[in-house]
Amino acid sequence: MEFQVTVLGANSAIPAHGRNQTSQLVNIGNTALLIDCGEGAQIQLRKFKLKFSKIDFIFISHLHGDHYFGLMGLISSFHLNKRKTLLTIFGPNGLDEIITVQLKHSNTRLNFPLRFVATDTAGKQLILEEKNFRVFSIPLKHRLPCTGFLVQEKPRLLNLIKEKLQQNKLPIEAINSLRRGKDVLDEEGAVRFAVKDFTHPPKVPRAYAYCSDTAFDLELIPHIQGVNLLYHEATFGTDEEERAAETLHSTAAQAAIIAKMANVGKLLLGHFSSRYIDLAPLLEEARAEFQASYLSEEGITYKIE
Amino acid sequence: MEFQVTVLGANSAIPAHGRNQTSQLVNIGNTALLIDCGEGAQIQLRKFKLKFSKIDFIFISHLHGDHYFGLMGLISSFHLNKRKTLLTIFGPNGLDEIITVQLKHSNTRLNFPLRFVATDTAGKQLILEEKNFRVFSIPLKHRLPCTGFLVQEKPRLLNLIKEKLQQNKLPIEAINSLRRGKDVLDEEGAVRFAVKDFTHPPKVPRAYAYCSDTAFDLELIPHIQGVNLLYHEATFGTDEEERAAETLHSTAAQAAIIAKMANVGKLLLGHFSSRYIDLAPLLEEARAEFQASYLSEEGITYKIE
Repeated sequence: MEFQVTVLGANSAIPAHGRNQTSQLVNIGNTALLIDCGEGAQIQLRKFKLKFSKIDFIFISHLHGDHYFGLMGLISSFHLNKRKTLLTIFGPNGLDEIITVQLKHSNTRLNFPLRFVATDTAGKQLILEEKNFRVFSIPLKHRLPCTGFLVQEKPRLLNLIKEKLQQNKLPIEAINSLRRGKDVLDEEGAVRFAVKDFTHPPKVPRAYAYCSDTAFDLELIPHIQGVNLLYHEATFGTDEEERAAETLHSTAAQAAIIAKMANVGKLLLGHFSSRYIDLAPLLEEARAEFQASYLSEEGITYKIE
Repeated sequence: MEFQVTVLGANSAIPAHGRNQTSQLVNIGNTALLIDCGEGAQIQLRKFKLKFSKIDFIFISHLHGDHYFGLMGLISSFHLNKRKTLLTIFGPNGLDEIITVQLKHSNTRLNFPLRFVATDTAGKQLILEEKNFRVFSIPLKHRLPCTGFLVQEKPRLLNLIKEKLQQNKLPIEAINSLRRGKDVLDEEGAVRFAVKDFTHPPKVPRAYAYCSDTAFDLELIPHIQGVNLLYHEATFGTDEEERAAETLHSTAAQAAIIAKMANVGKLLLGHFSSRYIDLAPLLEEARAEFQASYLSEEGITYKIE
């Protein structure tokens, strides 16, 4: 199953140095999720030739404008492009008012149903369950109510070992049971066909965690433990560690410490302050803590594996 | 005095084909005006290296999003850049609510004073008077309350003919009177120094008219009579004249007819539908009616002369 994230914008606060405000497109199976939607997100989607009619779910972390100023433009384009299918938007309370006030004043009755689901910061919460994946909100520490998002593959059916199947004639019910990871028992309750004998070892479900904006916060770790890819904000370098603490943001090194302690596969840094034209020092500071750190680059797709 | 307009976006509705939503920067003397502010206007301002800290007045024609979706981003950047000076925004009622709702939910107290002035469509109205220029709102015919804007230089002091001044010793009061265009009279009321003898012929004050969005509307003509440069929307080509009428937009040919009947200097076409990748046919249709027609090009500055 395809599972990847494409960065549309990786700058914080102000678009600068050719870098855009925060937004990411996550493709998982046939579903497209948009996480945050800074100004110009739809322009970036077009620029990188990404299909955005397939976006059915939008997740907004918090109500600082650099995370949602592109949302109304995208909704408006869906409307003008005659979208008919349900769009679900997850975000903090208040986002619904921001949307409805603007629809009211432009006298717009959307062609498609729009569902708003309020997020909150009371612990990790399951907010979306689809056939192949789940999305959880994760509480983040910031100046406004803010959540990250964890996108997790569901455990998949196990793959059968063909040769074993050919040697034994198994009834269809037994096969289904084995694929779900359940041994098949006989009438006395003893194991007749064991999962371990008939199936390949299970693939560990992949996961992607998105954490922006947030102060350096060790409480985040249990929520993102072992994810394949962690996006963690890195607004500042170590030179501005004090300012990061004041504004409830993180430094690149702090993001890397979180990545290391949570034992993630790779770390993607982003939400860079416009004071940094050259981001190499931030990357260097992160790699000193956690080698598999990378800078988010706009238009680049990162596979989750 | 500098008087020019730089196009930041010239597409309608949806940003497409590398064209952005409507926005223009007008520089007149030392003052910068922003007219409409589609999504990404601030990104365009940076891209074209235009100083936008000098923008003290923003004019929003109407509340279709492609004319204001970039406004909150710009306000937010002014705030983050520690602007202190007054920003005045002219626009239809409702825009104030759109702004305040978003400031409320982001818990933002702006660093600078923001004044909102509601426009309305009851005739041509003087909405701004500065030392060197005036701005009028002009009623347009569209699906929402919508106004265009007329930016007009004030009549300037006349230039004196140096040689004449050297031949005659004139008291300072007389010089000031002549520069203002008033003959200097003697005690009996007869002309002692005539304006026509001591000054160069007056320069006609220049004017720029911005008309987007609007149906083809002959009532517009008296308001924009004789302007040096007219921007008139040209959403469609003649092939879509019916659709233009239905949606209260204009075709390029209709814009040119207005330009011709109003006897303007030049016509700038814009607000192009994204159905047109190649805009040459629209230009051709306009030029058949009015030769001095031009396509708005993003990043290009048009002098008003």
